[in-house]
Amino acid sequence: MISRRHPQLNKHGELIHLLSIEGLPQAVLTHILDTASTFVSVSDRDVKKVPLLRGKSVFNLFFENSTRTRTTFEIAAKRLSADVLNLDIARSSTAKGETLLDTVANLSAMHADMFVVRHSESGAPYLIAQHCAPHVHVVNAGDGRHSHPTQGLLDMYTIRHYKRDFTQLSVAIVGDIVHSRVARSDIHALSTLGVPDIRAVGPKTLVPGDLREMGVRVCHDLEEGIRGCDVVIMLRLQNERMSGALLPSSGEYFQHYGLTPERLQWAKPDAIVMHPGPINRGVEIASEVADGPHSVILPQVSFGIAVRMAVMAILAGNEA
Amino acid sequence: MISRRHPQLNKHGELIHLLSIEGLPQAVLTHILDTASTFVSVSDRDVKKVPLLRGKSVFNLFFENSTRTRTTFEIAAKRLSADVLNLDIARSSTAKGETLLDTVANLSAMHADMFVVRHSESGAPYLIAQHCAPHVHVVNAGDGRHSHPTQGLLDMYTIRHYKRDFTQLSVAIVGDIVHSRVARSDIHALSTLGVPDIRAVGPKTLVPGDLREMGVRVCHDLEEGIRGCDVVIMLRLQNERMSGALLPSSGEYFQHYGLTPERLQWAKPDAIVMHPGPINRGVEIASEVADGPHSVILPQVSFGIAVRMAVMAILAGNEA
Amino acid sequence: MISRRHPQLNKHGELIHLLSIEGLPQAVLTHILDTASTFVSVSDRDVKKVPLLRGKSVFNLFFENSTRTRTTFEIAAKRLSADVLNLDIARSSTAKGETLLDTVANLSAMHADMFVVRHSESGAPYLIAQHCAPHVHVVNAGDGRHSHPTQGLLDMYTIRHYKRDFTQLSVAIVGDIVHSRVARSDIHALSTLGVPDIRAVGPKTLVPGDLREMGVRVCHDLEEGIRGCDVVIMLRLQNERMSGALLPSSGEYFQHYGLTPERLQWAKPDAIVMHPGPINRGVEIASEVADGPHSVILPQVSFGIAVRMAVMAILAGNEA
Repeated sequence: MISRRHPQLNKHGELIHLLSIEGLPQAVLTHILDTASTFVSVSDRDVKKVPLLRGKSVFNLFFENSTRTRTTFEIAAKRLSADVLNLDIARSSTAKGETLLDTVANLSAMHADMFVVRHSESGAPYLIAQHCAPHVHVVNAGDGRHSHPTQGLLDMYTIRHYKRDFTQLSVAIVGDIVHSRVARSDIHALSTLGVPDIRAVGPKTLVPGDLREMGVRVCHDLEEGIRGCDVVIMLRLQNERMSGALLPSSGEYFQHYGLTPERLQWAKPDAIVMHPGPINRGVEIASEVADGPHSVILPQVSFGIAVRMAVMAILAGNEA
Repeated sequence: MISRRHPQLNKHGELIHLLSIEGLPQAVLTHILDTASTFVSVSDRDVKKVPLLRGKSVFNLFFENSTRTRTTFEIAAKRLSADVLNLDIARSSTAKGETLLDTVANLSAMHADMFVVRHSESGAPYLIAQHCAPHVHVVNAGDGRHSHPTQGLLDMYTIRHYKRDFTQLSVAIVGDIVHSRVARSDIHALSTLGVPDIRAVGPKTLVPGDLREMGVRVCHDLEEGIRGCDVVIMLRLQNERMSGALLPSSGEYFQHYGLTPERLQWAKPDAIVMHPGPINRGVEIASEVADGPHSVILPQVSFGIAVRMAVMAILAGNEA
Repeated sequence: MISRRHPQLNKHGELIHLLSIEGLPQAVLTHILDTASTFVSVSDRDVKKVPLLRGKSVFNLFFENSTRTRTTFEIAAKRLSADVLNLDIARSSTAKGETLLDTVANLSAMHADMFVVRHSESGAPYLIAQHCAPHVHVVNAGDGRHSHPTQGLLDMYTIRHYKRDFTQLSVAIVGDIVHSRVARSDIHALSTLGVPDIRAVGPKTLVPGDLREMGVRVCHDLEEGIRGCDVVIMLRLQNERMSGALLPSSGEYFQHYGLTPERLQWAKPDAIVMHPGPINRGVEIASEVADGPHSVILPQVSFGIAVRMAVMAILAGNEA
């Protein structure tokens, strides 16, 4: 059923799972962004439900807790009129010794139509997609350090919304890139969409050198990294994922890499500032920037709902 | 957007947030009670959904756990056809160091239409109402010792249902008034609705003397407190909120302030007995009273659904 | 209202609560199975919502955690268009010292239409059914070691689906029967539906001898137990429910009672293998059997949704 070479696409090249942005053709990414734009309402008040997933069951399988991400998927699914089931996997059958694949087979048999999977181990959503029933679509909501494709897609939506043409842009990703599934997803997406100048900025311990092989410019100096940029994507300093020895103190980090209004002037005058949230004020970003005129951090959240609606609606329409 | 003088009302005097009964005009209270009466069904069996909040998203933000209160709001919202999202805030982004206001800004950006907020600190719902997006309505579901306005409103609904005319009533509130957000809400509501005789009854350690400034008669003797009353509102002895030194033992408390069938005879023959629940049988109230003919404790619960539906329906119809 | 002799049936012999299979007439069981068959869809993909419980509120009261069982009821209720409320009872009012019956009375007053109850103590659902408001229907989702009637019913549905005629069958139930609420429910159902040959198979410590009084053949040898059987129901080795002294080691258990492909040949060539899940691979069942051609373990899960829909739809249509 599922080709090894294209685990996310059926034989017609249509999306049947969203596991990673890596390996998705430009046409698929653009189709998702175009579909999302139909779900962005003119004002917040006129958002209405659409019946595209009426009668479908979306299962949120969060092996790793993330209230924020789960909530965005739950809202998106409910806007599409799906039934949503939140499974507290940590407390469920897996705790009774059931294997991951047995759990998944059982949930498939309960007539699940879609699994939204969050897992601390990279590759878990791939494993699930390979073994679940053919009528089930899998969406990766973050796996280990590997991938967070809907975050990558909503970042692309945001950039396109404010900057229109990807092929003329300079985009800097600043911060803890080595621990970030967002950074990897963004780099793959920017690259596929034709962004000519992608930069990874941060201290040596947090920016892996092998990014150069992906065509990314690696900078350890913030000024060099964001000079002349159209888009600055700040990453969260993931204190909770870092081991002690490599951990810069918050104050030290801000001193070298924190985005202040003064430093932001190195970027283009109309640059936008993005952040996947939750932000650490005064650690990677100054409050004046987070709340300032260049910030598009809250619009990112809004676009995230539309992008997740688009992904679910597209998946539900395609057959393995 | 939000006036300092009327944080709950827009410039037309319409309700846009329900934060406290204090400061709400009589006309607003009466409008809520009148609206609630349209949601009280003739029998339990013919309750049906109404589409007043179809396509709207109600977020339950419970910073303090209260399954009972959350459930009543969830039922009310679903009866109005809203989508309901329960956020386990204790386990979410705030635990990652995000500020309350950043959390609220993010949830607003997810197209929330209403926040139902429970918080252990007084004033938290006010703070949220002041800073959330203008399209979001805030309902206080209990903040610290301060306020629990929907409980106050359902108490007023219950009193009006059984006693009709507020302006002729004697109402006694008995028990742990100092720790009770219900008592404060009730006193403000009774006062605004014109009840001429409001009494606060309990031991000195649990009844603050400054209630006299609100026109309340303070009694430390139960017989004096409930003699001739039309309505007796018993409060829960909040063991979990009291410090050791001031805590009466349960047996001691019942001996002096527990409501028994004999003592209830001090009130009017047709007096009603209310309690916000959960009741402590044999602590503040005898089982014979809780389950007896004067008790309207379970009808209170039913009316509570209708009152919460009314509040949500009214808020959703008004613009900041 | 509720007759002592028929706590589950009204005076017309119609089902008003599902508490246990014991005491239900054959006609009621058959009616449930027939109704369930109308909810089994031709393919997984064309399952659609039906409006049979539109406007009704189903409360999941899980005093004992079971994500899997709760999920199946939640799906079933949502397929019937009910509103579903999941109550985390362990964290709620009962923790504040409220009695079980007060909690139930309060939830009834919130216009609940149905309680799905899971409790570690046998008989709790009976107690609730005796004391809840007459408009509330109770479904037992597992109580102590006593009963798990919807599991019993889905097992019967599965057997009828594959074997058609109950009156010609030999059915073996293998394993930890003494701790199993599933086994008891299955035995009552098989007996009522006219299965002539029911066998309970397992070590003496796990198979109570008094089953003989129910017409069950007790076997301590696996070969004798499953020889010539049409249906083999394997039970989960409930490590978490057993006390240390009686506990066989997993390896030891598998050596004597584990179902392997070789041992399965003792049964009829077209025998089906069932298991209530979650399975312990290599403890009570070999992976080759669980995943093999005789296994109907995953179809059981699918049928379980239809059976629970049937039970809820039937209950909602009957009046106490």
